[in-house]
Amino acid sequence: MADEHRESPEGAAAPTAFALRWEEPPEGPVVVLLDQTRLPAEEVELVCTDVPMLVEAIRSLAVRGAPLLGIAGAYGVALAAVRGFDVDEAAESLAHARPTAVNLGYGVRRAAAAYHAAVRDGADPERAAAAALAEARTLHGEDAEASERMAGHGRALLDELLPAGGYRILTHCNSGALVSGGEGTALAVVKAVHRAGQLRRLWVDETRPLFQGSRLTAYEAARAGMAYTLLTDNAAGSLFAAGEVDAVVIGADRIAADGSVANKVGSYPLAVLARYHHVPFIVVAPTTTVDPDTPDGAAIEVEQRPGHEVTDVILPHAPAAPGAEAALGVPVAPLGTQAFNPAFDVTPPELVTAIVTERGVVAPVTEGGIAELCDRSRSGNGMMAS
Amino acid sequence: MADEHRESPEGAAAPTAFALRWEEPPEGPVVVLLDQTRLPAEEVELVCTDVPMLVEAIRSLAVRGAPLLGIAGAYGVALAAVRGFDVDEAAESLAHARPTAVNLGYGVRRAAAAYHAAVRDGADPERAAAAALAEARTLHGEDAEASERMAGHGRALLDELLPAGGYRILTHCNSGALVSGGEGTALAVVKAVHRAGQLRRLWVDETRPLFQGSRLTAYEAARAGMAYTLLTDNAAGSLFAAGEVDAVVIGADRIAADGSVANKVGSYPLAVLARYHHVPFIVVAPTTTVDPDTPDGAAIEVEQRPGHEVTDVILPHAPAAPGAEAALGVPVAPLGTQAFNPAFDVTPPELVTAIVTERGVVAPVTEGGIAELCDRSRSGNGMMAS
Repeated sequence: MADEHRESPEGAAAPTAFALRWEEPPEGPVVVLLDQTRLPAEEVELVCTDVPMLVEAIRSLAVRGAPLLGIAGAYGVALAAVRGFDVDEAAESLAHARPTAVNLGYGVRRAAAAYHAAVRDGADPERAAAAALAEARTLHGEDAEASERMAGHGRALLDELLPAGGYRILTHCNSGALVSGGEGTALAVVKAVHRAGQLRRLWVDETRPLFQGSRLTAYEAARAGMAYTLLTDNAAGSLFAAGEVDAVVIGADRIAADGSVANKVGSYPLAVLARYHHVPFIVVAPTTTVDPDTPDGAAIEVEQRPGHEVTDVILPHAPAAPGAEAALGVPVAPLGTQAFNPAFDVTPPELVTAIVTERGVVAPVTEGGIAELCDRSRSGNGMMAS
Repeated sequence: MADEHRESPEGAAAPTAFALRWEEPPEGPVVVLLDQTRLPAEEVELVCTDVPMLVEAIRSLAVRGAPLLGIAGAYGVALAAVRGFDVDEAAESLAHARPTAVNLGYGVRRAAAAYHAAVRDGADPERAAAAALAEARTLHGEDAEASERMAGHGRALLDELLPAGGYRILTHCNSGALVSGGEGTALAVVKAVHRAGQLRRLWVDETRPLFQGSRLTAYEAARAGMAYTLLTDNAAGSLFAAGEVDAVVIGADRIAADGSVANKVGSYPLAVLARYHHVPFIVVAPTTTVDPDTPDGAAIEVEQRPGHEVTDVILPHAPAAPGAEAALGVPVAPLGTQAFNPAFDVTPPELVTAIVTERGVVAPVTEGGIAELCDRSRSGNGMMAS
């Protein structure tokens, strides 16, 4: 079962199906992934014809990002069902492809549940498989729709905060189409602003230690035709000091009940710089990111990642053979050097100007504002405050 | 004229002659350098038997750092004189080995002037060469003494600011024995604190894009037996938030008359974080770093370095052959990505708790305080204020 790679045909990937899509060529249905381990050096698609191949793609980080993993898991179940393989076995292997991706299990369960519900309702295998595929498409569509709504709310917020237009936006890490079924979270807002002709420049933090800014955000910015400039994370201070940043717009990994925001390490220093320079600091994330069981920032457990990501530089590369390591480490520090390598940091609500979700904007960020937003029915679409 | 390399014998490099020393083995005098292009992977000494070899070492960055380059230049002139080569020719080639190192020309001129003064006074070539060597040793000694005085003043300041002792100090870039004839500037203070048993931990910023923290400061910290931990520049915010930083201690590239401090990019964000968290931000630099012709921070011209240092990762390596490139770049960002890559940033005096020099400490940092310190006679040694 060798990997099949093919070059991405010009214009084949619509924005809402950029990183992953379902296709039905004459040879049978497939899940097509943009191989993220090979970005930005190469834009190569990985065509998964069966579940073991998709599981390998998830394990090797060819496909990554919490919402996108959920979508991949759901399509994987549909793939097994449509191609006539054992659905429960496929679901089991997909759900355990990576241990920490909660969304992966969620997507797998939704598609598998749809399949079994159809079977219980007397559907034949073909109709049950169609039900699984429909559920995967629904999940994909929900995520894309959430992106679109966040983009709309975020753009309206920026219009209000910065009426002069022509924004210079600073972002950190990757929060775009590579982690989402749609255009992403923070980067979806930036793209909407760009399409509206209001983006003067996107400042892209390189985002050490894994260079998600250099590798992925710069890639998406280039692809979208934005005016963007890359910088080391520590050069952001110079931009603030020079008055070159109109707003910071970032995503979130988890939002506590009090509005504390956990996001990629390096977000908190940007929040402090933004406050010192009176620049809006805007967080964009779907309401599924809010965890009401986490009361405040102190209760957020910060994942400590291996020190070798800092002592050795992990570089993207094109693997010579299927199954090769997804990353290559080159030592830069003395042997035996200990490193502090938290995956994310926590920004307290008082430093966050606004949280933009698919249901609207919370500003100022308060426990009550967040609770009200999350209690609201999913169809809600209004601005809470500004 | 092949490079001669030899392994550093255990204990051969005394702290004050760590990165460069003059030796007189039976085969004739030599300038011995620690080859900084091969740190931290290999600790290898480069033995320069003539000026062309030393020029090549300067060009290839085997020896670097403004004060240390001045010392290397002075010893180079002495080397030519002692070995009977044309002193003016040697001085000319050394002074132009690197275009921007002001100290290099200064060291060369001092040793050459001592040689010519001796000749004018009727000295034979041997005694004139001895005069050049004596001047190089004087320069080396002055720099080492300045380091020692800064270390003493800095340690006293920390004792006063943090009477509980057991400091957790955060530093950025490299300001140690690798840039100085002595133990350096900021890192000399840290070493003095360490020897006094008062260093609980040194937090070492990796210092993108060229990793001077990972490569050089971690190397010096390991060699000195400090408890040190490396981190990405953007993880410093997490340490401040957790109350894990007692003081920031950094060097300076230039200090304006008003006390604005230009230092390696990433220093200013640390100053803002330090202020937000009520942590002292201490700058350590010799008075030669103060430029009275630069009135304020806005007048400091910030060098913009090539973008490829950010778009491509420059890694240290051991060159396979003499004359090989000192650094290897691996692309991480998409082709054609533009990067913002200032070499340093400017911290305004109101964010600097104190400036520590060889002549004493300026605190608070004011134009008057700095002027008073610089006007004082070189033998002065008192604390200005604290």
